[in-house]
Amino acid sequence: MAEANSKEEYVVGVDLGGTKILAGVFDSSLECIGTTKVSTKAQRGVEVVTERIARCVQDAIDEADLSLNLVVGVGVGAPGAVDFEAGTVIFAPNLEGWKDVPLKKQLEKHLGVPVFVENDANIAVLGVHVAELKSKPKNLVGIFVGTGIGGGLIINGEPYSGFNHTAGEIGHMVIDVNGPKCGCGNKGCFEAVASRTAIFQRIKAGVKNGEKTLLTDMLGDGLEDLRSGDLRKAIRRGDKFVSKVIEETAEYIGIGVANLVNILGPDVVVLGGGVMEALADEMMSLIIKTAKEHAMPGTIKGVEIIASKLGDSAGITGGAVLAKRQTKPKG
Amino acid sequence: MAEANSKEEYVVGVDLGGTKILAGVFDSSLECIGTTKVSTKAQRGVEVVTERIARCVQDAIDEADLSLNLVVGVGVGAPGAVDFEAGTVIFAPNLEGWKDVPLKKQLEKHLGVPVFVENDANIAVLGVHVAELKSKPKNLVGIFVGTGIGGGLIINGEPYSGFNHTAGEIGHMVIDVNGPKCGCGNKGCFEAVASRTAIFQRIKAGVKNGEKTLLTDMLGDGLEDLRSGDLRKAIRRGDKFVSKVIEETAEYIGIGVANLVNILGPDVVVLGGGVMEALADEMMSLIIKTAKEHAMPGTIKGVEIIASKLGDSAGITGGAVLAKRQTKPKG
Repeated sequence: MAEANSKEEYVVGVDLGGTKILAGVFDSSLECIGTTKVSTKAQRGVEVVTERIARCVQDAIDEADLSLNLVVGVGVGAPGAVDFEAGTVIFAPNLEGWKDVPLKKQLEKHLGVPVFVENDANIAVLGVHVAELKSKPKNLVGIFVGTGIGGGLIINGEPYSGFNHTAGEIGHMVIDVNGPKCGCGNKGCFEAVASRTAIFQRIKAGVKNGEKTLLTDMLGDGLEDLRSGDLRKAIRRGDKFVSKVIEETAEYIGIGVANLVNILGPDVVVLGGGVMEALADEMMSLIIKTAKEHAMPGTIKGVEIIASKLGDSAGITGGAVLAKRQTKPKG
Repeated sequence: MAEANSKEEYVVGVDLGGTKILAGVFDSSLECIGTTKVSTKAQRGVEVVTERIARCVQDAIDEADLSLNLVVGVGVGAPGAVDFEAGTVIFAPNLEGWKDVPLKKQLEKHLGVPVFVENDANIAVLGVHVAELKSKPKNLVGIFVGTGIGGGLIINGEPYSGFNHTAGEIGHMVIDVNGPKCGCGNKGCFEAVASRTAIFQRIKAGVKNGEKTLLTDMLGDGLEDLRSGDLRKAIRRGDKFVSKVIEETAEYIGIGVANLVNILGPDVVVLGGGVMEALADEMMSLIIKTAKEHAMPGTIKGVEIIASKLGDSAGITGGAVLAKRQTKPKG
């Protein structure tokens, strides 16, 4: 199969999340030619999840009408602390039992091709930098707002991960020292006030306190299966309560952006992740306005604050970029 | 004069502050051989301050028994946004009327030697990195706590200043979004809760509310001429109120450190500035404890958090390092 393209070399990017695994096959010009998605089933344990990743990769390759022997490398973004050199996931808070998992080694055993593992936000910012922004920004901050908030940094044109390979852990930047409790045990972390988790908590607390919202008509009083897209639908139908919660969230994100601009002086700040994908139209102008109010005038002048167009594909794209960089082209 | 050392080349570092100007002459091994200090007299206007800087430099050279023709360059740290290439101070909030001041050009006219101007925190972290830490840390965050809070970054071994040359503007990182008002107009900036200004405000507010403190015995009820050193004296004499304020401040600084460790993943965080110079013994252990509680465990593992030993000399030392780097050694 794929006889005509037999000289072409392909890479696969994988985005391992707490609820789903996404895999995409990319050609040498980083065009995506096939994707698959499976649920993570984290509760079934590390081994099952690892097998599911391998299967997802194989399915994506099949989806693209290719075979594994045309794939030169696989890049995986994992939601936690990663030892890139060793290829292990040191700790992934949203994946049950994931502590010192030798993911690279195990996937290579399953797939028989070189595998590279990185933190998911680092990989996503790499994907945005190379594939979406054509490597133009010298210094880039990526903010990915989903269940939590992850960040990735490009400094002087290259991915930057610092001493413990953990730089960009922006979700636990405290911005409201007396604010709501975070999963990490502290109060007022960025992700405790501005992630999807924080948004849903505020909405559910509001409903309990008698706030009226279209969401209960749509989903029932328990708001089960609430998704970011539901918030967008509610806002577009005129839901004032949801609008207010999303405005507050946009302000928090704007303050987070301002902090990062003040500290890092990037050329570009790019926002991505599921919440941004669903609600960028509703949030971006207020995020930019709040960031400009909170950053020092000299620091934010000329800095671009944009929403990524890659959406959910940032992770798999970055995985592909990583795999492409790490594998030398053959004959 | 200085006949025996006539082949030696000297540089001068200048620390331009809101209240005082410090100049130091350094030999080629970065040993300080003479310093002078004059008050800034910012209210007298830009021209007078510029002349005072020039005089301070000349006095320091005289103090070291040298003459200007043995000096190859002068490095100046200015408290604000600086355009390094142009050598202008774009804006210095604590210096009346300092907007787009061509400081390099004017000082070169006065002194007849090359002058280099940088942001004061950038220069201080350069001084600490090169002279105190022997350029060992690959990634270093400097936090300077004084009237305000300034920051400087070394990334991959080199000073990092980002897109607008303003990176490290950590004093306006929001950490308490509903906290006290900052000079910049926002609420709960790092320097609004943890600078000397913030400490003094809390102490004065406490005294107004009837808190008992030895400071009023020492300085009168108005607490005029209160200095950081007075706080240290009061604490060592058992002043519980001042101890409590300084403990709160150390906790805020620890949270700021944690944020920067989470974001930047440095090998070393170094704390300096007047407040640290006076109160490091009282604050450091609580700063480190709080930072460890607030940073992600994986990000802070092995990260050194230290107080600079350069104290008030960090600025002039950094100025000397800058001047040395920018001027090529002559025959």
